[in-house]
Order: sequence, then C-alpha cells, then structure tokens
Amino acid sequence: MATPPRQMSIGMNILGLGGHAAAWRMAEVPSSSLVDVEYFRNIARISERGTLDAIFLADGPALGGNVAHHPVGGLEPTVLLTAVALATKYIGVIATASTTYNDPYNLARRLASIDHISGGRAAWNVVTTAGDIAALNFGLTGAPLHEDRYGRAAEFLEIAIKLWDSWEDDAIVNDWQNGFFAHPEKVHAIDHVGKHFSVKGPLNVRRSPQGRPVVVQAGSSEGGKSVGSRYADAIFTTQTTLPDGQAFYAEMKNRARAWGRDPDSLKIMPGLSTVIGSTEEEAHRRCDQLDEFQGEQGLVGQIAARIGISVKELDIDAPLPWHRIGTVQDVTKSSHGFFEAQINLAKRENLTVRQLSKRIRSGHRLVVGTPEQIADTLEEWFLSGAGDGFNIMPDMFPSGAEIFVDEVVPLLRRRGIFRTEYTGTTLRHHLGLSRPRSQYEEEQEALLSA
Amino acid sequence: MATPPRQMSIGMNILGLGGHAAAWRMAEVPSSSLVDVEYFRNIARISERGTLDAIFLADGPALGGNVAHHPVGGLEPTVLLTAVALATKYIGVIATASTTYNDPYNLARRLASIDHISGGRAAWNVVTTAGDIAALNFGLTGAPLHEDRYGRAAEFLEIAIKLWDSWEDDAIVNDWQNGFFAHPEKVHAIDHVGKHFSVKGPLNVRRSPQGRPVVVQAGSSEGGKSVGSRYADAIFTTQTTLPDGQAFYAEMKNRARAWGRDPDSLKIMPGLSTVIGSTEEEAHRRCDQLDEFQGEQGLVGQIAARIGISVKELDIDAPLPWHRIGTVQDVTKSSHGFFEAQINLAKRENLTVRQLSKRIRSGHRLVVGTPEQIADTLEEWFLSGAGDGFNIMPDMFPSGAEIFVDEVVPLLRRRGIFRTEYTGTTLRHHLGLSRPRSQYEEEQEALLSA
Repeated sequence: MATPPRQMSIGMNILGLGGHAAAWRMAEVPSSSLVDVEYFRNIARISERGTLDAIFLADGPALGGNVAHHPVGGLEPTVLLTAVALATKYIGVIATASTTYNDPYNLARRLASIDHISGGRAAWNVVTTAGDIAALNFGLTGAPLHEDRYGRAAEFLEIAIKLWDSWEDDAIVNDWQNGFFAHPEKVHAIDHVGKHFSVKGPLNVRRSPQGRPVVVQAGSSEGGKSVGSRYADAIFTTQTTLPDGQAFYAEMKNRARAWGRDPDSLKIMPGLSTVIGSTEEEAHRRCDQLDEFQGEQGLVGQIAARIGISVKELDIDAPLPWHRIGTVQDVTKSSHGFFEAQINLAKRENLTVRQLSKRIRSGHRLVVGTPEQIADTLEEWFLSGAGDGFNIMPDMFPSGAEIFVDEVVPLLRRRGIFRTEYTGTTLRHHLGLSRPRSQYEEEQEALLSA
Repeated sequence: MATPPRQMSIGMNILGLGGHAAAWRMAEVPSSSLVDVEYFRNIARISERGTLDAIFLADGPALGGNVAHHPVGGLEPTVLLTAVALATKYIGVIATASTTYNDPYNLARRLASIDHISGGRAAWNVVTTAGDIAALNFGLTGAPLHEDRYGRAAEFLEIAIKLWDSWEDDAIVNDWQNGFFAHPEKVHAIDHVGKHFSVKGPLNVRRSPQGRPVVVQAGSSEGGKSVGSRYADAIFTTQTTLPDGQAFYAEMKNRARAWGRDPDSLKIMPGLSTVIGSTEEEAHRRCDQLDEFQGEQGLVGQIAARIGISVKELDIDAPLPWHRIGTVQDVTKSSHGFFEAQINLAKRENLTVRQLSKRIRSGHRLVVGTPEQIADTLEEWFLSGAGDGFNIMPDMFPSGAEIFVDEVVPLLRRRGIFRTEYTGTTLRHHLGLSRPRSQYEEEQEALLSA
C-alpha cells in the first residue's frame, strides 16, 4: 500500500465576533452572541462540515479591551466548549487556559472531564498570560516575569501529564458481583514536589479517551519554545513571513528531537487571518469596510500594543521608529511571538505603519483575497516546511467561516492536501498523533522486564 | 386573588450511582456511567419530568474512597452540569465547588457562564472541603482549620457576589452603528482587598440571567451557619430528627433576620435519603439487599468516619461509645453537620450502631418505605417548620429517581404542596427567590438621590 499523502490540519479560531476588531460593527450577528452558546455551536457545525480538525478559543482571566468601544465579556472556554462538543461529533475543541492563574489539579481534571464528555476531542492551549490586568484579579500587583511564568508552566504541564497518566488504562475491573472495582496498584499517586507546586494525586477522573487531552502551546519566546517542544502536541505560532515560518518550523522540530521526541509528534500550526471574497476586489472592499469601521487610530493602536510602545510614537505613513524599539529580550511582560511577528515583517519588507496594518490582524499574518489565494498560501507554507497545519482566523463570523469552509476547503481537498472526510473520532487521530501510554504503565512494565 | 399556597422545593442529589454506597453492586447501570454524560442527562430529564427545582452534584477535588471496592473518578461538576443543562429546559443545576481550593475570579466566571448557557438555572453549592486528602493536591500538608476555611469562604463569597454585580444590567448599549458598546461607568472594578484575596475586577462576563447564580451553602458548623445566613439563597442541611430540623430552621431564619435579610429569602433544605418500594416490605427488601452488598463493616465504617473515631471502637450491637466521642467543638477537620446528624439521632433515640446505620445514609436521614411514607415525612417536615424544601438522595439511579418522580411527586402535588408545572424558567423563580439588583447599581442610585 502506498503511503497516504501528507495532509494539513486546520483549526478554526473563534475570536469573539471575528478576527477583525471591527467585526461587531457590521452587525452580522448581535454582540450578545458572545454569551450565546448557539452562536458558537453554529460555527463549530460549519467547521465540522468542512472536516476541520478543531475549533479554538483564546482566553485570559480579565476584562481586556475598552468596554466603551469593543464588545467584551464572553463565556469561559472549558464551559463553552463542553456545550459545543455536545453539538458536534468529530471536531476537536481547544480551550485556552493559563498556567499562571490556575491550579494543576483543578484544570487537569476539567480537561479530562471534557475529554470524556466529547469522546476524545479535548485539547488545552497552554498560555502563561502576559500583561498585568489578569494578575490584579489574582492577588498580584503585576504579572510575574516571563521566565517565572514559563518555569511555572513547565512544572504545571509535568503535573497535568502525570495526573492524566495516574490511572492506567486497565485499572478498572468493575467486578460488581464480587465488589472489586479497580486495581489500587494501577491508580497512582503522583507525589509531585517541585518549586511551584506540590500535588499528591491521583486524579479523581479515570484515564480519558485520548489518554491525555491534546496539549497545544502558543508561546514563541525562548521559554515558550522550550516548554512547547518538550510537552506539547501542537504549537500555535505567529510567523508572518515564509522564511521566518520555515526557520521556526525547523527549530521546533530540532528542539523536539533534542528532547528525544519524534519530530513528527509535534505539529506546527501558524496562524492566518483571512478576509475572503469571490474576487480580489470584493475581498479588499470587505476589508476596507472593516478597516474604516475600526479607524486609523484603532489599526495603529493594535500595532503599538503588540510592539509595546505608545500610539503617539507611531506615524502612520512612516516606517516603525526603529530607534525606539528594543530587542525581543527587552519584552518581559507581553508576548514575544506577537512582537517578533510585527517587527520581522516590517523590517523585511520595509513597511510603513499603514502598510504593516494591512498585513497583520490579531497579531497574525493577514491575507485578503480569493479562495484560490488563501488556498495557495496555505499550500505554499504547508509544502515548503513552514507548517503542518494552520489556525485560521476569519475576519467575521459566521460568514468568514462559511466562505472558508465552502470555498477554500474544496480547493485544498482537490489539491490532495486536506481530508475529504473524518477517518477517526478523536482530535489526536485528526492531528496524526498517537495515543500516549501512561508513564506509570511504562514504568511498571520496565520494572517487570528488568 | 388568594395567596397561592406555599409549596416545597425539591432537589435531586445525584450522588454517583446512588446514595447507597453499594448501589453499583446492583449493576442497574454500568459503573462507567460516572463518566457518561448521558447517565446524568437521563436523571436530569426524569427529574424535570417531575418538575423538580434542581439537580445537585456534590464534589471534592481529590480521589476519595477505596478504589478497590468503590466506583470513583467522575466528571468535574461545572463541566458536567453544562452538559446536563443543555439537555433540559427548566431544571436548575447546582454545582458544588470548594472555596478552599479555587480562586474567586475563575469560579465566579465559570458559574456566570453556566448561568448564561442555561438561561438562568445555575447554582453554586459552597463548601470549604473538610479533610486532608484534597489539601495534599493543592500544596498543603493538611486541610486548613475550620475557622480559617470559613474565613476564606466568607471573603470568597463577598468577592464572587461583587464580581457578578460588576456589570450593571443596563451597561450594554450595543450601538454598533456608532461603535458604542457599553457604558464604562456601569462596568465596575470591585477593588477588593482583604485578608485572603485581592481582586480588582470587573468580571469578564456580563451580568447573567439570574443576576447572580443561586448560592447554596451546605455547612452546619458555626462558620457555615454564619456564612450561609449572610450570603446564601438556600441551605442544604443534615438534621436527622424533626426537633433538630425545626431548631435549625428557626435559627437560620433568625440569623438571616439579624443580617438584615428577609428570612423568606433564605430557603432551608434538609437532605433525605430514600429507599422506596410499592410496599413497605418491598422497600425493606431493597434496602436489605443493598446493605448486604455493603456489609456490616461498610455500614459501621460510614458511621465511624462521620463521627471521627476508628471502626475498631464501634461495637455494632452496642450504643455509640459516648465516652470516646467529643463535642462538635472538637471537630476541627471534618464536617460539623454530619457529626451532629449522627450523634443527635443516636442519643435522642438511644440507638445501637446497627440501628443507627439503618436510619442514616450518606450522612443524611434515611427513610425506607412506600411513596406515601416518603410523602408523609416530607409533608410533616415542610408543614412543621423544618424545611422549605428537600434535597433527595435516592438509593440507586435511575430507578430511585424514577420511583420518586413517578410515585412520590404525584402525592405531593395532590396534597397541594408541590408544583404541577414549572411557572418560570430560572432556578431563582422555582425557589421563590427574587432576582437581586447589582449592588453597584443600588449604590449609584443612592448617590444620585442623595
């Protein structure tokens, strides 16, 4: 039998009412959709119709943005994705949750619960939550420094994985006639004692369908890359030029190898913001309309925030003020990935602020164009070693998701680089990842064969 | 118009596979039901068919019980009840969560999210989690002392309520045409700084359908009574004799009054464990069969654990060893309510351990009998000032819930003390509670009228 051709993975990033900050101004749906589970279920069903791998929800435990001018205040992801999973059959559900502002026992348990409820479709996007506003909701006066957040994240992940492994697959006997439920020696205390946590275990949820929920990591800093290459199954990333994408891809695969992993067990998924029209003209008209609603100040403000300088220092028709911009090492309290994504593109193509604003949305590479153009860029990145898959951020919901699924997905299928149907029921299966064995089961086996 | 007759509230407590510890031995459902959302949805639908107020899930963030001989390892309640809420239309969903092992911002947010998703049916059963095993999963070497747990609980509740109030009802304008989403002055930072927490707020979820999810409190200690009478909408309690039930009811209503509350805004709901048969004989046969599966050691062990002494000190055919049993003030690390429920019944009726074991299950008063006998005791307690409603713990699911709904509920309806249909869609409505106004809205109004 011939090896089946390599196919890409695709995630649908449901960023509020759309990836474009002005999506709500188009009133395609009411802004109360942010607390309406049916809005999210609808997008999930559209995505499932397109045999996408997963839907994805970003998150931070604080009220961000300016409440006067932006619709904010949505539903908590683990709760919301439970609701979405039950309205779908195949598609994975990826919840973002912070290692800085959660406890490993509680979070590992909720994610394992979602994995059970969804029949093996749960994933956790691990973030460390940059910025001070979340910190102020958790007894801190400001966000911990970058390296401290990632130190905690690494230990948090180690614990979560131990907890997910704490029940061996065959621990439960369920011999009700004789009153024997499970083998105690196959349900393991994890006895973790570390710098940030001590957790005894075992988890109070039996091992879930995927063994462990899929772990996604979204940080491109040194700390993020180290943690991600070691523990993650997939990396969501932010490169905005093909050479940067290729370099990041190669680096992460090498890092995975250095941890003793099969590099193919780590999937690299760059983000892509999309504005799609039947013609190029229509796409640009759509984008221009959204941009007009957002206004120049809004566009410039997004760039300023990602770079970490004041709006006042940016002249929209001039290049970035390079003398005012430090290196990524100076970025201690916000996202390294978003910083580099902007800086590198602007520098490589010598863009003005205005030009840059037309090439990046939600911190990610933006393509405005026809379904063919979207398919082309996905194919190019996929075939030239810059991505195993992509996290798509449509401008506006549901129309941006619909046109992607109905117009772009068929092109990718015709080109043989995307599935025509689901061939399994778990997210690990969709992503081409194997189901991990419990580390305790492996340990026991090693002891027995020694 | 005549005042409608007072009617009771009823909650269905889904305690694993049944309130009787040996329920799983009957194999009415497979023990994998603990991680099967359909099992819980089915019980919720049965309960909704009986127009019950709510279903209830107990919880602790640790693996309790002996894994060899008891089915353990279920789903996390906020996730599970989201799934259940979406399969029902009217019934409330009450999730237990610990103030000792959660952060107020995260938990308030999840509960508000469930309130949105369910259209106003969410409730939180506030517990402080007695015992050391949970503590060991959260970096502690043992449970904090009783008074410290309740100090934290009081502050936790104050914060949760502030967060739920942080968006005024009319904060959102959603003027998409002019780009004006919400009045910033109607979305409030809470700026809480206290002994255990500092939380800036506002919550990142807009105000939910019930204003605030219903707050249930289940501790009968001094700390529990103080916190519950101040902040709770309903109290789940454990009295095992009618005089104790009446005294507790009166005390809690008085305590509510002392906090300046309308005593009718605090609902008292004692627990009742049930084993129901068409005849008394059938009910006892069912109970005896379950007891036989559990075995004498199991029955004695439950009592010993609640009283906090060793099994070895109990002689099954003798009274409790009173010289070995302290007062409730000596109970520092486990439940005061369960301790008193056992001690008081045994003392009042001079019971042997065996006799006591036939009168209490899951720490609550047990009635084994016909539908009439169950209806009689509920009516008696309801009409004699011992309860506004009841939390029912059937021996086994789903049959124990089915017989309650199909045989007991019709009797209560015929007697005019239970609803024949839902007259509203929120849990507050079912319980006869009004929707609270935001404290910040009230403050603003007071300022304006001053």
